[in-house]
Amino acid sequence: MRPVSLSIPIDRESPIPIFEQIAAELRARIMSGAIAAGAQLPPTRAFALQLGVSRSTMVTAYDQLVAEGYISGRRGAGFAVENIGDVSLPSASRAREVVEPVARLLLPFRPGEPDMRLFPHRAWGQAVSRICRRVPEAMLGAAPRFGLPALRHAIAQHVADWRGLEVDPAQIIVTSGASDALELCLRVFCRQGDFAAIEDPGYRPLREFIAAQGLTPEYLAVGAQGAELPLQAKIAVLTPSQHFPLGGSMTPQRRHAFLRWAQQNDGWVIEDDYDSEFRFSGRPIPALASLDGQGRTIYVGSFSKIFSNSLRIGYAVVPPELQQRFADVQRRFGMRASLMPQAPLAEFMQTGEFYRHLRRVRRTYDQRRQFLTDALRRDFSDVGTFDDHQAGMQIAFHLKNGLRDTQVAEQAAKAQVEVESLSAYCAEDRGYNGLLMGFCAFDEEEMAQALTRLRAVFDQL
Amino acid sequence: MRPVSLSIPIDRESPIPIFEQIAAELRARIMSGAIAAGAQLPPTRAFALQLGVSRSTMVTAYDQLVAEGYISGRRGAGFAVENIGDVSLPSASRAREVVEPVARLLLPFRPGEPDMRLFPHRAWGQAVSRICRRVPEAMLGAAPRFGLPALRHAIAQHVADWRGLEVDPAQIIVTSGASDALELCLRVFCRQGDFAAIEDPGYRPLREFIAAQGLTPEYLAVGAQGAELPLQAKIAVLTPSQHFPLGGSMTPQRRHAFLRWAQQNDGWVIEDDYDSEFRFSGRPIPALASLDGQGRTIYVGSFSKIFSNSLRIGYAVVPPELQQRFADVQRRFGMRASLMPQAPLAEFMQTGEFYRHLRRVRRTYDQRRQFLTDALRRDFSDVGTFDDHQAGMQIAFHLKNGLRDTQVAEQAAKAQVEVESLSAYCAEDRGYNGLLMGFCAFDEEEMAQALTRLRAVFDQL
Repeated sequence: MRPVSLSIPIDRESPIPIFEQIAAELRARIMSGAIAAGAQLPPTRAFALQLGVSRSTMVTAYDQLVAEGYISGRRGAGFAVENIGDVSLPSASRAREVVEPVARLLLPFRPGEPDMRLFPHRAWGQAVSRICRRVPEAMLGAAPRFGLPALRHAIAQHVADWRGLEVDPAQIIVTSGASDALELCLRVFCRQGDFAAIEDPGYRPLREFIAAQGLTPEYLAVGAQGAELPLQAKIAVLTPSQHFPLGGSMTPQRRHAFLRWAQQNDGWVIEDDYDSEFRFSGRPIPALASLDGQGRTIYVGSFSKIFSNSLRIGYAVVPPELQQRFADVQRRFGMRASLMPQAPLAEFMQTGEFYRHLRRVRRTYDQRRQFLTDALRRDFSDVGTFDDHQAGMQIAFHLKNGLRDTQVAEQAAKAQVEVESLSAYCAEDRGYNGLLMGFCAFDEEEMAQALTRLRAVFDQL
Repeated sequence: MRPVSLSIPIDRESPIPIFEQIAAELRARIMSGAIAAGAQLPPTRAFALQLGVSRSTMVTAYDQLVAEGYISGRRGAGFAVENIGDVSLPSASRAREVVEPVARLLLPFRPGEPDMRLFPHRAWGQAVSRICRRVPEAMLGAAPRFGLPALRHAIAQHVADWRGLEVDPAQIIVTSGASDALELCLRVFCRQGDFAAIEDPGYRPLREFIAAQGLTPEYLAVGAQGAELPLQAKIAVLTPSQHFPLGGSMTPQRRHAFLRWAQQNDGWVIEDDYDSEFRFSGRPIPALASLDGQGRTIYVGSFSKIFSNSLRIGYAVVPPELQQRFADVQRRFGMRASLMPQAPLAEFMQTGEFYRHLRRVRRTYDQRRQFLTDALRRDFSDVGTFDDHQAGMQIAFHLKNGLRDTQVAEQAAKAQVEVESLSAYCAEDRGYNGLLMGFCAFDEEEMAQALTRLRAVFDQL
């Protein structure tokens, strides 16, 4: 069958990204029947040329429609329109008034944000609807202590497959995001006035939790091997797989040094493994917890980066002998995680939809990382340097020539470019002076535009 | 049309309550077509007699099926089977393996629990499915600061209609349950070492939050007028509509005294209005916040009691001039509430389904309260007394004749009866010695069985 011939209007001034304009137009025509089920779509290269967009934009648009279930196929072999007889069209206009969609306000290069435009909303909606019909009480019934058993099973499988952690589902505690898990750990292990060691620079809410609990922070400098060992604290919160926000992983030597430290000092390591699923080349680095034979490490994971931040689902993996202590604290303070996302998420993981999505965004984010790092090397080498760790969701771009990161960030914000200053992530003066640039939530077109504006900011400083 | 003739096997030894056995059997026959659409069901009184169950059990079973949409009608006029051609039957047996429903482990008389068996699961599932189809990004997109606008609108409407509070939706902050809102308030107003005043007896997690934040609790004794005024603290957390756990409301004089105290001392009142929608007779008592013309009261509400505890959705209503302070704290500590329940909940409220459910459970809970208070007056007056406040979700039953509440609670637990001891809700020795008995999550049959066992406990002490 010859591919259908299509003309799609593109508005380059629109705030809607071009790939989304293309996907929206194709989606509308498929749903209205204007493009019939079974029709072949034009190949990405030819279609991109015809519309005057980059090929990667075209690929992203097709990938989006594949994820949503409107088309099937793959690059090279061609894409065809699915039979979508069962799609429910939006019925009432009133409906749209009742719940308006949330406006997208992200600016490039906000760090740590996934691109929810790539999310398989239709497949997720179907999973949620299936649960609603089949086991509605799993979404609203009594919330079981530590989370829905099905989700705890799926997470145990996930950390075994992806992080080399062989654990019993009974060791999993479902929390309201990783930050809830980190706060829970601090409450279990620390009393008023205790020291708690955290990396500096590091994840800022941790400093707030520590201050709010009346603990004294011990800041660990981060060198080429990773964070330094604590001298006073009995608890250390670390990001060994990929340091936040600098990037780079802790060396095996330092990992073992931390495990020895914990063992010899009756200490505890909290491993905050916030986005380690995003490693774009080489072998995955096993979790520090997987090296620990002494039950001194609490592993904390999150779905905020790899799935959706607004679900508010994270988890802690707790050594068996600590389960009672965690249960006591959780009972005293109350459960924070909503039950509602847990059953659909478990099903999404168990049916493999979750992993299809994860593989897809990994591929896309890798392309975006490549695009950003190429551009930084090509057009920004006079103002800064960076290490490409081929992992994570952001680049720490270190400024040179006396440029001040806070000043650059401030000027960039005026030009609608969001770069966070590295120095803002430090509690003490560490000499870090750079920009944290997220590359996941923005496509190449958006980043290109933002880079042009950022270049102008540098040229005017 | 003559009512169909039905025989339903009832297992009185089963842990499944009888009304649910009846509802399950009718539901299965309706779904299989064994009872046809349009068929009249037997009248409650005759059917109850035939099956040998109480009429209220029968009414609860029918009400359940009405809420789920399987039958329609009302007591007196008769009930008929709906056309359920569009019901999706559970398709694969595999599906049930993926997500098992959560087991019901509640024992009478656990306090503060709604009866999720009465929940309109089918209508809720349909609302969720509609959102999934129409605006899927409203469930998983970027979480807006302070919560989904549609839900904040619905909550503003709710507190206006139910609590006499005229507020702008911009003043609403959606939180992960009321406890998250209370913790947020403490973080906004208190620094390490400050006093925070809370009622004693009172809601126990508050004591934990206060200790965990390095604050000093000032315990307010609770008398006939309500809580006493603080002497040292600048912040007081109160339950004026219905004291927790004693019951009873704060007098207007004391309410005004608290507002004057706040105004004259630069103090703040946090009004924890956790279940005030459950007032079964007389006029609703307006929120304390509705009397406050000075912006000194933060109103905290929750969906945990009136809807579902496992959604984890509550809210704070913040005076306009404090919004920035709350926003700052929320940004520093991070958002806890999941976005996913917010759009369906907003729609449920706006379409009125929410209020149909609320009116229905109010009626049922009122019957259950009546049943429990009648039984306590009739069969337990030798061992204790209580005030019937005709509100709330539990009865504080004060023991007499030298009985010790902790001992009774312990023995009751052995007999599979869950009564919490009032003294456990006190931080200081206040002379409270009683049992907290929840009546909402249990039907009359369940309570009758539990009361028989509780009576035996008293007889053996």
